[in-house]
Amino acid sequence: MNSSIGDVKPQTMDFEEPLLLKCGDTLSNYQLTFETYGALNDDKTNAVLVCHALNASHHVAGTYDGDEKTLGWWDNLIGPGKPLDTNRFFVIGVNNLGGCHGSTGPSTINAATNEPWGSAFPMVTVEDWVETQARLATKLGIDIFAAVMGGSLGGMQALQWTIDQPNRINNAVIVAAAPKLSAQNIAFNEVARQAITLDNEFFDGDFYQHKAIPRSGLKIARMIGHITYLSDDTMDVKFGRTLRKDSLKFNFDTDFQIESYLRYQGDKFADTFDANTYLRITKALDYFDPAAKCSGNLAESLSHAEANFLVISFTSDWRFSPSRSEEIVEALVANKLNVSYAEIDSPNGHDAFLMDEPIYHNLISAYFERIWNERCDV
Amino acid sequence: MNSSIGDVKPQTMDFEEPLLLKCGDTLSNYQLTFETYGALNDDKTNAVLVCHALNASHHVAGTYDGDEKTLGWWDNLIGPGKPLDTNRFFVIGVNNLGGCHGSTGPSTINAATNEPWGSAFPMVTVEDWVETQARLATKLGIDIFAAVMGGSLGGMQALQWTIDQPNRINNAVIVAAAPKLSAQNIAFNEVARQAITLDNEFFDGDFYQHKAIPRSGLKIARMIGHITYLSDDTMDVKFGRTLRKDSLKFNFDTDFQIESYLRYQGDKFADTFDANTYLRITKALDYFDPAAKCSGNLAESLSHAEANFLVISFTSDWRFSPSRSEEIVEALVANKLNVSYAEIDSPNGHDAFLMDEPIYHNLISAYFERIWNERCDV
Repeated sequence: MNSSIGDVKPQTMDFEEPLLLKCGDTLSNYQLTFETYGALNDDKTNAVLVCHALNASHHVAGTYDGDEKTLGWWDNLIGPGKPLDTNRFFVIGVNNLGGCHGSTGPSTINAATNEPWGSAFPMVTVEDWVETQARLATKLGIDIFAAVMGGSLGGMQALQWTIDQPNRINNAVIVAAAPKLSAQNIAFNEVARQAITLDNEFFDGDFYQHKAIPRSGLKIARMIGHITYLSDDTMDVKFGRTLRKDSLKFNFDTDFQIESYLRYQGDKFADTFDANTYLRITKALDYFDPAAKCSGNLAESLSHAEANFLVISFTSDWRFSPSRSEEIVEALVANKLNVSYAEIDSPNGHDAFLMDEPIYHNLISAYFERIWNERCDV
Repeated sequence: MNSSIGDVKPQTMDFEEPLLLKCGDTLSNYQLTFETYGALNDDKTNAVLVCHALNASHHVAGTYDGDEKTLGWWDNLIGPGKPLDTNRFFVIGVNNLGGCHGSTGPSTINAATNEPWGSAFPMVTVEDWVETQARLATKLGIDIFAAVMGGSLGGMQALQWTIDQPNRINNAVIVAAAPKLSAQNIAFNEVARQAITLDNEFFDGDFYQHKAIPRSGLKIARMIGHITYLSDDTMDVKFGRTLRKDSLKFNFDTDFQIESYLRYQGDKFADTFDANTYLRITKALDYFDPAAKCSGNLAESLSHAEANFLVISFTSDWRFSPSRSEEIVEALVANKLNVSYAEIDSPNGHDAFLMDEPIYHNLISAYFERIWNERCDV
């Protein structure tokens, strides 16, 4: 019990049905990379879709080739005996369209040109992702998800599922999310995008053909993002003003631990993530605003939702503060939907959704226990 | 009354006495650019030094050549009949050493090489600035400042004055400051520095010789800074999710007003500010920590201070929140110093210190009224 699910292998699925994107472009075909954990039961009522956020992928749980360093990003939550128990549930992680971990995206080959898509890859939205995830579910024989779940941008996808696919989702678990970005949220994304697009190695998005990578821009983008994921308090407890050496250096090398930590995180990210994907995912975040179609009335946009909801926020999350989750909760309550809401006391900022916080994990566990039992009652 | 002081002219002062900097380097000579407003009285008891923050200069009040666009950065506070009344006080603004508005700095010519200093310009600290400001005061015949005043990094200089020059300052007015940066504060500065130093046009700080300017890096740095100066609420009220055009563009041009505002601010800054100065001032901010010499005990570091203090914070300032000002106040109270403290209710974030908020300005006005009256009582 409570062990990792062990080694896993990503799978791919080809889609030949044209996909009309919200931006107006059509993809004539595309591929999604995904992983599954646990087994789909005979009546296909135990499937759970886990949606990823800005920096993650379909690799939600388990390891590759026994390497603990390859542990999935939500492995502490998902596995045998874990809060989302893969002994009970069939869990799916999908690399979103436009991603850079296997699914068709800017860094994959465009069959029409036999070159990487690069700047020609269209803009993708949360709605597009929900559509592609629904198509994948259909191909896997899943009519209805027991739950769709995600943190941050992943939670936004879960919310969009309840709007776009109300008959195919029984529960939405929305963690550390918001119904739309604030001006400040957009501002941070825009600085990150400027850092990438102004990088000399970006070549207007067609850096692959130049054998270049806009590493500096990606690094800066990641450093900015990282600051917004941590709370001021966490940073002070974890790093404070601790120096790397005994004294100040009086140069532009790293004096403080927090500086070298951020540089390290930025460099690591620049080694593994695609700049065009980063640009598009931040735009998908900025564009997400389901209430916009209803003149800003979020409750109205959710008027056809039928799912039950678990909404969770964290006290020290200043990226998507508890008040942002409460906007979602209020819109759900206005629709007399079944919603559980918890504001978890945590010092860990936005990143708390990725951490093993006992009250948080117990809550997820209890919620999935209820889903499991209600499923048996049927 | 309450009019601008009108046209002003900057002055320069040459210093031939070698200056040993905290970094260990010595400047054999240097120049400071400064402005003065009002008249020094015969007994030289009415001088007020105004210290500038990261993005500003010696041009605190008034205009150049009648051009309203050149209004000084604190003109709303300083002038005839204004809270800091130039009919009474002799006010001095100094471009700090290492700056880029006239004082000796990285972009000025190094007499030893006849080239801009560039990367060879030493690191400067708040303590160095206080020393140079004190030397300027001496040359101007001012033994004791009626007050030293500043917001943000300017407030830190005022605090350092009470430690380094306790007999030469009667009052310290410290607005929207902190006794040291937090890890998060340092983190934002470090991202800005990385944006500049990773810019291909930076040339390790010697871009002048390459006829280059690291504009992209400066732009990113300024955009990051700007976000931290505004509150989340102000941004939402001022910009929200307002689009520039009627609909989303689905490209990487600016969709939202906040994006174009930040790009504009960034471009404007890149046109006028020196990258090497920006790097050094952010380091001076990071290094500022008067308590460090006393094992972190701020009260002990202030044990020789004699000034009276006015400390002001703003509720929505998340860069240097009220709790940071309260750290200063507690250390002053522990030393039984005369301190007035006000937390001003304002939605305008860190930038509130630059704005004409009536309660704030009335408070400054009342405090200088007291300084004036006490001066007459002497």
